[in-house]
Amino acid sequence: MLNKPAIIRTLGALVLISGICMLTSVAVSLIMDDGQHMALLISSLLTVITGGTVLLLSKSGSTIGKRDGYFIVTLSWIVFSLFGSLPFIISGAIPSFTDAFFETMSGFTTTGATILKDIEAVPPSLLYWRSMTQWLGGMGIIVLSLAILPMLKMGSMQLFIAEVPGVTYDKLHPKLRETAKRLWAIYAAFTLTEMILLMVAGMPAFDALCHSFTTMATGGYSTKNASIAAFSSPYIHYIITFFMFLAGTNFALAYFGLHGRFKKIYTNQEFLFYLSMVVASIIITSLVLATGINLPFEQAVREAAFQVVSIITTTGFITADYLHWGPFLIVLIFLLMFTGGSAGSTGGGIKMVRLLLLAKNSRLELRRLIHPSAIIPVRYNHRSVPPNIIYNVMAFMVFYFFIAGISGMIIAAMGYDLATSFSTAAATLGNIGPGLGAVGPVENYSHFPLFGKWFLSFLMLTGRLELFTVLILFSKWFYRN
Amino acid sequence: MLNKPAIIRTLGALVLISGICMLTSVAVSLIMDDGQHMALLISSLLTVITGGTVLLLSKSGSTIGKRDGYFIVTLSWIVFSLFGSLPFIISGAIPSFTDAFFETMSGFTTTGATILKDIEAVPPSLLYWRSMTQWLGGMGIIVLSLAILPMLKMGSMQLFIAEVPGVTYDKLHPKLRETAKRLWAIYAAFTLTEMILLMVAGMPAFDALCHSFTTMATGGYSTKNASIAAFSSPYIHYIITFFMFLAGTNFALAYFGLHGRFKKIYTNQEFLFYLSMVVASIIITSLVLATGINLPFEQAVREAAFQVVSIITTTGFITADYLHWGPFLIVLIFLLMFTGGSAGSTGGGIKMVRLLLLAKNSRLELRRLIHPSAIIPVRYNHRSVPPNIIYNVMAFMVFYFFIAGISGMIIAAMGYDLATSFSTAAATLGNIGPGLGAVGPVENYSHFPLFGKWFLSFLMLTGRLELFTVLILFSKWFYRN
Repeated sequence: MLNKPAIIRTLGALVLISGICMLTSVAVSLIMDDGQHMALLISSLLTVITGGTVLLLSKSGSTIGKRDGYFIVTLSWIVFSLFGSLPFIISGAIPSFTDAFFETMSGFTTTGATILKDIEAVPPSLLYWRSMTQWLGGMGIIVLSLAILPMLKMGSMQLFIAEVPGVTYDKLHPKLRETAKRLWAIYAAFTLTEMILLMVAGMPAFDALCHSFTTMATGGYSTKNASIAAFSSPYIHYIITFFMFLAGTNFALAYFGLHGRFKKIYTNQEFLFYLSMVVASIIITSLVLATGINLPFEQAVREAAFQVVSIITTTGFITADYLHWGPFLIVLIFLLMFTGGSAGSTGGGIKMVRLLLLAKNSRLELRRLIHPSAIIPVRYNHRSVPPNIIYNVMAFMVFYFFIAGISGMIIAAMGYDLATSFSTAAATLGNIGPGLGAVGPVENYSHFPLFGKWFLSFLMLTGRLELFTVLILFSKWFYRN
Repeated sequence: MLNKPAIIRTLGALVLISGICMLTSVAVSLIMDDGQHMALLISSLLTVITGGTVLLLSKSGSTIGKRDGYFIVTLSWIVFSLFGSLPFIISGAIPSFTDAFFETMSGFTTTGATILKDIEAVPPSLLYWRSMTQWLGGMGIIVLSLAILPMLKMGSMQLFIAEVPGVTYDKLHPKLRETAKRLWAIYAAFTLTEMILLMVAGMPAFDALCHSFTTMATGGYSTKNASIAAFSSPYIHYIITFFMFLAGTNFALAYFGLHGRFKKIYTNQEFLFYLSMVVASIIITSLVLATGINLPFEQAVREAAFQVVSIITTTGFITADYLHWGPFLIVLIFLLMFTGGSAGSTGGGIKMVRLLLLAKNSRLELRRLIHPSAIIPVRYNHRSVPPNIIYNVMAFMVFYFFIAGISGMIIAAMGYDLATSFSTAAATLGNIGPGLGAVGPVENYSHFPLFGKWFLSFLMLTGRLELFTVLILFSKWFYRN
């Protein structure tokens, strides 16, 4: 029933593209003169040749159905991570296959959880490729969330998708190509702008490039062991904070902004909700840091803004070890790990639009109790939300917390405490990266057992693909006619 | 708009009844010869006279509306706790008003969180009254959940309520009185049976009475500092485990069981879900205790069964300090704190029926994604569930986790760690009692600051009254015509 040739052909094309991207790291190696060009060349060629061969040998022309779409999306990330781990394995930078796969899956899913104990010991060209996996993953997510998932009728995505220029519901071609090009142009332009600004603020070009890649992808991989704390300039912190916020915004809104249609932005309820949550969390955190921990005012605001935006957008960059911020802020950060960016951004997690719809529905329920015979629908951006979308959002939340809960148990069974277990589940499922306890800001994921690393890779993948894309493959209904 | 005379009159009647119940503790004091009879007599008379006076002076005959109902329910528990704390204050057993109110609210809400550091130092007659507050609270909850809330059109309650003999939707009188009598007869019969069995198993009559009161109410107040661990007989542990399970079952099902209509029980999906969750959790816990902690098999099963049922049913009795059971079981117990008993039982928390409906809806969502044009409703006990009930369940869950999250932050702001903060929120909102960390099985709630005790009292009340009953009083729509 599944269109296997079409699935294989699409995957072949995607592998070919990732191989071509990987080739750029050979140039980086030569420029940086770090001696990794042969390892990178072999990896790239293996990837290009495999992708190219599959593409050439497979039949073309058959249409891709909805079920094929689910398969392609999930398999893409897995196949990307398999080939993407080659440079780490062949160069010997990460000799273990499990570790290399974890690191690459963490990259392509824009999670940013690392098994590297000493990032700075890794040759620059490999750090470049590591950053690039996130940037490519972010590109993939923009197309996935703004074009492919709505086409697959993924509930809540339909809500805002009507706003995206050029996307229609039932036809993938030729509009998808057009939309993807526009969105990627914005994505690339933002990345370049950030890179230039970071260089102006004093960051070396190489670091600026890598951090711009991982900021716009809300990925969080750094070239430094201390993450962004390695850079002392406050300007660098502010610039990255701003671009993390931007990366957590719906890219369709960025499109409107660039075309001067600002009303589309300031009347978008998800954006306003996202902005309010960011601002409120920054204010609370700054106040606690300034009064409770006695940080100087500017530093309090800067660190608060950086860490709040980093967690909410699921980026995971670090400028301060928030585990020393006292129990109140630790709990606040833990809760913010369950927010996520806006839908249509590169941010992971639950997403603002879902939280907003749930909040609206819950508030209205009090009204419905008082007027039980009245029909009181949830309204979003001045339209009534149909029940099937509310059902979908609810199902998403239930799956999310169910998976987080069960995962917390599984992680605890490996011997980790409650805070580590649940924050690890939240940090991987939400594609954030750092968590609490043994996965805190100054820690890494190297201490997990073999099974744990594969399990967490699965969580990163499931979370990144909006749960349903992966879960549906385990449903008996998927395989019935 | 509110029918104030009717509200006051109803509250007066309820205070009068609680005063009469309190009078029985005077007899207990005389029998146990603990010298508290005067304090108890004064408290009882104050309560009886206040209630009687209000009842006599208020006008009768006016009908009670829905909004009045919400007010009466919330105010009942508050007024009960105010008068119920008199014996503790007047006797000097709990001199602080805040502590006495907390302890009584914890009683009437069947929570079982205590501020007492040395329970055994409290005179028996006061421990009797303390246990009785839970028993009365349990009675109140049965009527509330099986008769009053359905009448107030509280969403998910309507689902199973049609099954209750003698309850109609729109008329409180005279059926309510009849139903209440039947349910209370069952409740009292179960309590008496448990007491006799406990005495046969070797528990002193006084302790057997008090523990039967607090078992059937899923309250968890004990007469011993070590809770049920103070009794070494395994039979006592098994008996209490069985009755906790019974108390967590819908009392309407118990009614059918006593009338030989067993098919009503074993075809009830909520009951089967409740049973499965209990059995599965016991098996997992026993296995970990028997293999990981190397407990003897019988002890492992007994302690596992006791603690699992105690937490799921929100009773809160203790036979073992589960904080020493390793991270996996600590996380499991934390998750079980978010289950709760069956609807229509004396158990608190989220309730099995809600979890079941959410699970069903989430699973169906995968099917809906594959067949987007098909209308696939949730089915419960062989009937389609209307969307408004699913909406209500969703709103309940959102409020529940929102309140738990915000409360966790507020508790953390008092200086408690993450595990303590969230488990305290879960243990009070879910009316369980013990939690993790500083509110663990061998700890108590005395160390909370003044504000904390009032705040936790509010959480206990809100959780006990199914959230909406209290939250609706804060809604602007409640006060509009």
